[in-house]
Amino acid sequence: MDQERIRTILREVKNQDLDVEAAYVKLKNLPFENLGFACLDHHREMRKNMPEVVYCPGKELEQLVAIFQAMMHSSQTVIGTKADIMVFRQLRDKIPELRYHDRARIIYWQEKKPATLGQVALLTAGTSDIPIAEEAAVCLELMGVQVQRVFDVGVAGIHRLFDKIGVINEAQVVIVVAGMEGALPSVVAGLTRRPVIAVPTSVGYGASFHGMAALLAMLNSCAGGIGVVNIDNGYGAAALSFAILNSIKA
Amino acid sequence: MDQERIRTILREVKNQDLDVEAAYVKLKNLPFENLGFACLDHHREMRKNMPEVVYCPGKELEQLVAIFQAMMHSSQTVIGTKADIMVFRQLRDKIPELRYHDRARIIYWQEKKPATLGQVALLTAGTSDIPIAEEAAVCLELMGVQVQRVFDVGVAGIHRLFDKIGVINEAQVVIVVAGMEGALPSVVAGLTRRPVIAVPTSVGYGASFHGMAALLAMLNSCAGGIGVVNIDNGYGAAALSFAILNSIKA
Amino acid sequence: MDQERIRTILREVKNQDLDVEAAYVKLKNLPFENLGFACLDHHREMRKNMPEVVYCPGKELEQLVAIFQAMMHSSQTVIGTKADIMVFRQLRDKIPELRYHDRARIIYWQEKKPATLGQVALLTAGTSDIPIAEEAAVCLELMGVQVQRVFDVGVAGIHRLFDKIGVINEAQVVIVVAGMEGALPSVVAGLTRRPVIAVPTSVGYGASFHGMAALLAMLNSCAGGIGVVNIDNGYGAAALSFAILNSIKA
Amino acid sequence: MDQERIRTILREVKNQDLDVEAAYVKLKNLPFENLGFACLDHHREMRKNMPEVVYCPGKELEQLVAIFQAMMHSSQTVIGTKADIMVFRQLRDKIPELRYHDRARIIYWQEKKPATLGQVALLTAGTSDIPIAEEAAVCLELMGVQVQRVFDVGVAGIHRLFDKIGVINEAQVVIVVAGMEGALPSVVAGLTRRPVIAVPTSVGYGASFHGMAALLAMLNSCAGGIGVVNIDNGYGAAALSFAILNSIKA
Amino acid sequence: MDQERIRTILREVKNQDLDVEAAYVKLKNLPFENLGFACLDHHREMRKNMPEVVYCPGKELEQLVAIFQAMMHSSQTVIGTKADIMVFRQLRDKIPELRYHDRARIIYWQEKKPATLGQVALLTAGTSDIPIAEEAAVCLELMGVQVQRVFDVGVAGIHRLFDKIGVINEAQVVIVVAGMEGALPSVVAGLTRRPVIAVPTSVGYGASFHGMAALLAMLNSCAGGIGVVNIDNGYGAAALSFAILNSIKA
Amino acid sequence: MDQERIRTILREVKNQDLDVEAAYVKLKNLPFENLGFACLDHHREMRKNMPEVVYCPGKELEQLVAIFQAMMHSSQTVIGTKADIMVFRQLRDKIPELRYHDRARIIYWQEKKPATLGQVALLTAGTSDIPIAEEAAVCLELMGVQVQRVFDVGVAGIHRLFDKIGVINEAQVVIVVAGMEGALPSVVAGLTRRPVIAVPTSVGYGASFHGMAALLAMLNSCAGGIGVVNIDNGYGAAALSFAILNSIKA
Amino acid sequence: MDQERIRTILREVKNQDLDVEAAYVKLKNLPFENLGFACLDHHREMRKNMPEVVYCPGKELEQLVAIFQAMMHSSQTVIGTKADIMVFRQLRDKIPELRYHDRARIIYWQEKKPATLGQVALLTAGTSDIPIAEEAAVCLELMGVQVQRVFDVGVAGIHRLFDKIGVINEAQVVIVVAGMEGALPSVVAGLTRRPVIAVPTSVGYGASFHGMAALLAMLNSCAGGIGVVNIDNGYGAAALSFAILNSIKA
Amino acid sequence: MDQERIRTILREVKNQDLDVEAAYVKLKNLPFENLGFACLDHHREMRKNMPEVVYCPGKELEQLVAIFQAMMHSSQTVIGTKADIMVFRQLRDKIPELRYHDRARIIYWQEKKPATLGQVALLTAGTSDIPIAEEAAVCLELMGVQVQRVFDVGVAGIHRLFDKIGVINEAQVVIVVAGMEGALPSVVAGLTRRPVIAVPTSVGYGASFHGMAALLAMLNSCAGGIGVVNIDNGYGAAALSFAILNSIKA
Repeated sequence: MDQERIRTILREVKNQDLDVEAAYVKLKNLPFENLGFACLDHHREMRKNMPEVVYCPGKELEQLVAIFQAMMHSSQTVIGTKADIMVFRQLRDKIPELRYHDRARIIYWQEKKPATLGQVALLTAGTSDIPIAEEAAVCLELMGVQVQRVFDVGVAGIHRLFDKIGVINEAQVVIVVAGMEGALPSVVAGLTRRPVIAVPTSVGYGASFHGMAALLAMLNSCAGGIGVVNIDNGYGAAALSFAILNSIKA
Repeated sequence: MDQERIRTILREVKNQDLDVEAAYVKLKNLPFENLGFACLDHHREMRKNMPEVVYCPGKELEQLVAIFQAMMHSSQTVIGTKADIMVFRQLRDKIPELRYHDRARIIYWQEKKPATLGQVALLTAGTSDIPIAEEAAVCLELMGVQVQRVFDVGVAGIHRLFDKIGVINEAQVVIVVAGMEGALPSVVAGLTRRPVIAVPTSVGYGASFHGMAALLAMLNSCAGGIGVVNIDNGYGAAALSFAILNSIKA
Repeated sequence: MDQERIRTILREVKNQDLDVEAAYVKLKNLPFENLGFACLDHHREMRKNMPEVVYCPGKELEQLVAIFQAMMHSSQTVIGTKADIMVFRQLRDKIPELRYHDRARIIYWQEKKPATLGQVALLTAGTSDIPIAEEAAVCLELMGVQVQRVFDVGVAGIHRLFDKIGVINEAQVVIVVAGMEGALPSVVAGLTRRPVIAVPTSVGYGASFHGMAALLAMLNSCAGGIGVVNIDNGYGAAALSFAILNSIKA
Repeated sequence: MDQERIRTILREVKNQDLDVEAAYVKLKNLPFENLGFACLDHHREMRKNMPEVVYCPGKELEQLVAIFQAMMHSSQTVIGTKADIMVFRQLRDKIPELRYHDRARIIYWQEKKPATLGQVALLTAGTSDIPIAEEAAVCLELMGVQVQRVFDVGVAGIHRLFDKIGVINEAQVVIVVAGMEGALPSVVAGLTRRPVIAVPTSVGYGASFHGMAALLAMLNSCAGGIGVVNIDNGYGAAALSFAILNSIKA
Repeated sequence: MDQERIRTILREVKNQDLDVEAAYVKLKNLPFENLGFACLDHHREMRKNMPEVVYCPGKELEQLVAIFQAMMHSSQTVIGTKADIMVFRQLRDKIPELRYHDRARIIYWQEKKPATLGQVALLTAGTSDIPIAEEAAVCLELMGVQVQRVFDVGVAGIHRLFDKIGVINEAQVVIVVAGMEGALPSVVAGLTRRPVIAVPTSVGYGASFHGMAALLAMLNSCAGGIGVVNIDNGYGAAALSFAILNSIKA
Repeated sequence: MDQERIRTILREVKNQDLDVEAAYVKLKNLPFENLGFACLDHHREMRKNMPEVVYCPGKELEQLVAIFQAMMHSSQTVIGTKADIMVFRQLRDKIPELRYHDRARIIYWQEKKPATLGQVALLTAGTSDIPIAEEAAVCLELMGVQVQRVFDVGVAGIHRLFDKIGVINEAQVVIVVAGMEGALPSVVAGLTRRPVIAVPTSVGYGASFHGMAALLAMLNSCAGGIGVVNIDNGYGAAALSFAILNSIKA
Repeated sequence: MDQERIRTILREVKNQDLDVEAAYVKLKNLPFENLGFACLDHHREMRKNMPEVVYCPGKELEQLVAIFQAMMHSSQTVIGTKADIMVFRQLRDKIPELRYHDRARIIYWQEKKPATLGQVALLTAGTSDIPIAEEAAVCLELMGVQVQRVFDVGVAGIHRLFDKIGVINEAQVVIVVAGMEGALPSVVAGLTRRPVIAVPTSVGYGASFHGMAALLAMLNSCAGGIGVVNIDNGYGAAALSFAILNSIKA
Repeated sequence: MDQERIRTILREVKNQDLDVEAAYVKLKNLPFENLGFACLDHHREMRKNMPEVVYCPGKELEQLVAIFQAMMHSSQTVIGTKADIMVFRQLRDKIPELRYHDRARIIYWQEKKPATLGQVALLTAGTSDIPIAEEAAVCLELMGVQVQRVFDVGVAGIHRLFDKIGVINEAQVVIVVAGMEGALPSVVAGLTRRPVIAVPTSVGYGASFHGMAALLAMLNSCAGGIGVVNIDNGYGAAALSFAILNSIKA
């Protein structure tokens, strides 16, 4: 869309309907919308083919309202991550169209469902890892990706995993969410040829150091084919899956 | 191949040509070759469709000789990573077919070139990051992947990167290798819709803490679509790229 | 002022109007005001030409009242940083002249506006970094510095920054506030010849380790011309800017 | 033995053959042998029923000679750990009875073989972990423990482990040695009811932080029944196994 | 029990009463019970001969209810660790049979008392370490282990410990719980030939770093025969004791 | 006192008024008082000549009541550190003799004032460090030590310190309490020949890492004559001062 | 220069002497020189008005030769930092014009001396910090800055510093280089109104953690007006000074 | 001495024999000797009554020669710490009076023996800790302090320590040197009323993190009366002992 507008402007310059300076001003103003405190970047969706995503913590209510409204004007899907339910309730008073997924702690709005893009197998080591997995799942489903949930298959009972190898191999991408010792991605990557996205969680206590133990384990995996995202970053795993599925489709 | 053998065994059981216990023994012995100190896992190649890879440090010469010889018997491509040239020279005295890439510090042997699988753009922030990038590149090329090298385009001169956006977007996967502040993957991921594999390097000094600074920066990227591997893990980036390209091809 | 008093004392010694010991006692008592728990240092303002600044956390209400009152007696501008609104309200009951900036969490009092000193460009990577940026901005404005705010221009949408290069280059000093991966100062320093003051923030989660990731990234910047202050230390960036602008003016 | 001597002394006191002070002096001098720089503690063997063990690094040759000689005088088995071969060669020039195990880096001397005490299964994740495993194995064998070595069964090829469950369950204690992500102890503890002693190794690079990643993973294991020893502490695993087998036998 | 069922199935296959595929399906479904979010692993109890244990934090009430109910259906003893009393109260409203130990923060249910298995001496360095010690004690008692509590015998008054050596040596296993400098396990292991399980606690402040100081001290103990579990992991010490006592009994 | 009782017992043994076993039992029971959960160590006061001190956090009310009551029975001075006012109020309901110092967060009871022991100069870098300094001061005064408070003389206004050199040199011991960069002990130790006890505090934010920065600075001081205690450990500084003053007096 | 060329191109476009596409190609090729492995960025010098600087470690000899030659073609001053003398000797064999400063470990070449820009006071806490200070000094002098060296004035003998206040206040910028506890910048910033650039060094041992202690101290300084650079980053301090002096001059 | 000169100058001013400015110049030049790279501070000896001490690493030979020569001119005792024997040999070629203690790695020179000051008990946990203990011992003996060495009495054989309580209590100060778990100072401080100076050493491996484990243990000691110095800082313990003994004597 913007590319069309840019070509139009350039053709006008060529045809002398627009001088260089005026063209420059038009181009400069095209993609940005100035909210005073936040330069929303609508180009990003074009470049990334991805929904707009807002990281909610540390933003004031008025800022969130303005950001969501601007995004809903220009995008088909808007996602707010790590959002407390209290934040959602205050936002919904201002923007009634917003919805909330409480396990995933995601605020979202979607004008229309996107086309189906592919399939992701989503594993967790334990039950306590489910909220982060759901953050990934909700984001993926809003991006048009089918999600196969395989929860609570951690390495302390490794045979439970073997029952699920079929599901894993049918997907194009595998996301593995694990806290504590973070060993599951290594085992899964040893069993499948699919790319594995490892998500460490802060589940644990003591020497888990809020997810540091799981993060280090995943980075040091002796199995090939693993990419790691930040601790508790369910959205990050969804975004990387989406990029991979887009590359597959392209 | 093994799947055929397993089906043959099962049909024999069904046909009463083999009792259950004997079948069990046959199955058990099928995939492992016992070297005394190392259970080589030839199933892995089947499961992962990937060359055999040996992490060389900490292994004795006799162990390396035995491992390489066993792998060369069962695989078409064998790769040894993080290998000093002295180790290579000692190994080559025993196994003259081995080759060495000195910048990448890789020992390799390849019976025949694999089919072309896809294309990866490989970026480095600085010149000092090139050895790790070459570790990834050599592995990828031995896996049948085409590699577009784009070196020395770090964020301190960010306009140098923009010249290369075409190369980046033509690839199916982008690998970004960076030490010091590790900022390049964030910028690249903001410019492309391709999956980005971030490789922190130990290039730097002082508060880089041997790559910790770059690693943390990459994990905390505010741009979506990034998976991180271990510090200096060029092979890991190649393996993840390979898994993604395989998913694309499948 | 004090220098005049010292000269007066010394002339009195020379003229035998004052014996050495009495002169010593006078000099000793000149600059300190004893509040019992806090030796206020009015010399500091002379030496530093800077407003008095109080770090509020961990101080009791009675201590804060006494410190503010003593400072307001001897200075033209008094600033209290990292102050909760509840602390402000209790303080204002005792000292009604105090004012509060709630986003910056700053309590302040200013007898008269200082002369204009220069211009600082103040950038943030994201919206969540704004409170720390405002801490810097409010301090700077109370010091007589003009502040150009350029918010939400982080590296995941790097082209947003390029629109602002003019503003950056017009300033004498550039402050860059960023959390998460902390990559923005490197990019900015690569684009301008101005000194860049980098402020890491605790914005982020997981492996951001409360700002550690951003701090390390900024310290390891491959771009020259960057000085780093403590995590979330907006005031520190203002103080360093002020010192630079004073050097320029001198 | 000492307990008998103590009882003899006490009976002498009771029988007035010894006054209290003289008895006190006798008791005090009984167990210590003074080498000037090292108080050898022969009681320890009595209390612990374990061979004398010397940690060799940081000790001078003369000190090592004196310590080994004193221990050989009072014990049946003497073990020196983490010893370079150069240290051994210098020691052997002075004490020709000493022997060396080069993979385990252990200097030892044994007057007579101890009675057989039990059986330990000793697993490693990779080939590079073998030196630390051999440190444990050599110590155990000198203590009279049978060792079943099961090497190179790491989680990236988890099916290799299942072939060995029989060996694992036949032992009274299982030692698992692993570097990198340190995931193997969790999997093993999920498969056996035996106590599992986890030994992290410094095998790895980058974010393995010299064994820290493996150590943290093992401490955070979601499987019960695991005790962890120091990084690269093969001897420590042997000592704990020995204490357990002694409790079993007692 | 399951082993009997498996043998029955295999005999049916042998007798041609069941074809291979049907047998496979039966076997596959045998051990798992699908709760949607958690694959309970009843095999684990068989393999480990241990009660089912649930780590409560981070699980929702509905999840906990379902997990407890399923476990109570298949096990004789169920334990929930690190449970706040509020969680217990909500759970008890749904499952009135549950009980709570408030110092240990354990929810439990036990159908019948297990046979006595052995004896553990349980030491704490200070009074503040008692809650973690009680977590271990309650788990052990529910597993049929006798517990001798020896509390508040830390190294700052080391003579208090010597009075208790008899109790320590009578046990088959010794658990030592200590925060702050974590020195007690070294001293105890120097005094007994029993295996010592060291539990660091987060008791302390400042440079204790939430138990890190005690953990490191225990891992670096110069005394042999010590296995370390995670910080505050009373349950882990119980589970390892149980595995050792089982090995003794077997 | 106990030494007298021990001599009495020994004389009775010598005189055959007591058999060895009975004497052993008497001796064993002498110094300990068994509260069930805490072995109070009254010997410690004899050995250390110091008041009894209780670290209050993590102890239950009933435990604190019993500990205080037992100590008040056997000691002249009892001190409880790091105590919230709510804890004090609950304790006072049971033991009305207890007193509280709210800035120091200390509960105390003292039967009679001890003899004067010596003089300590107590410095703080800032006003926020005063609570930790008062913890030291209150403990010292209860131990009979005179305290000269010199607050708020941090290095950013180093001339304020010079005015106080007389006070510093008059004391036998100097305690320096500082947070943030923790530089004051180095400067003070460079100015006096007195022993300097450095107390890092958790005052600060960001990269102070809860006192870690100050702790490391103090440990690395280039000035000789400094001993460091734990972060926020005012009591520890008092105890070390007391030990030094006792050595002086002895 | 380049700005003139760009204007020329744009005027040609305006005058129809150049079509848009050709102009685009010309612009794109203007600033980059392609060495195969390193995109040298000559724009940087224009943007930053600073000499070209090469970080030497991790680069191969051939790479360094090519980089130096290209830079010497386009710049007036070229600096290589952290260079071993062996590297210099090999380089000089290829490029005889290169010079070396051995204390600063800097390779340099300068076509003509730049105009004088201003004055920097350069302080060190100890003698061991001098090499890093000289790295800063040599860079500054090659940039046209006058350097006043004030070495060995650390806080353990703080009165030595006061003698130098005149030198400090005469400079426009003050650089303070310190290892160990890193306290000197706080003291200096408390004494001058000049901007202070703090350089932590890795001088020290034990808990200095290779400069971490000094770095943290400097970041947490309670004195305003300090900017911190990486550990041992003398060049970084020079670059920031240069940027400040340029702002002053502009 | 200097105090006399200062009084002389002041009397001259009073008597008009000296004008103020000339007096100022005289005073300013009195205590400093300018070596170009190092401002030796002879005042320090006056202020601290301590020998001059040079930290040798990182200083060039010429610097060391000049520093030693200047110090030998003004002091009676000069000590160089952490000195390799090669450094000593080069220095001795220039200054033949220098002596070397090779276990302590100390270079020293002493014009005349100081008066006896007091007595220190010096304990080590193990034999490997002796070099650091000797660093303390040699410094102390050069300062006139008597040293009672009690080596190898670590907590794994705690009864060895009890034999030495008499020696400990006879000293005025106790230094305890320990690596690995660093538990010995806690035990010693629980047994004596003397001030205890704890010296962590880097003896150990794995999770000792070069002395970090011992350092943290010592800082967290539950026993009162302990001051901690830097890892491996034998000199620091001597300097603190010396300051205490001076206070005692004063």
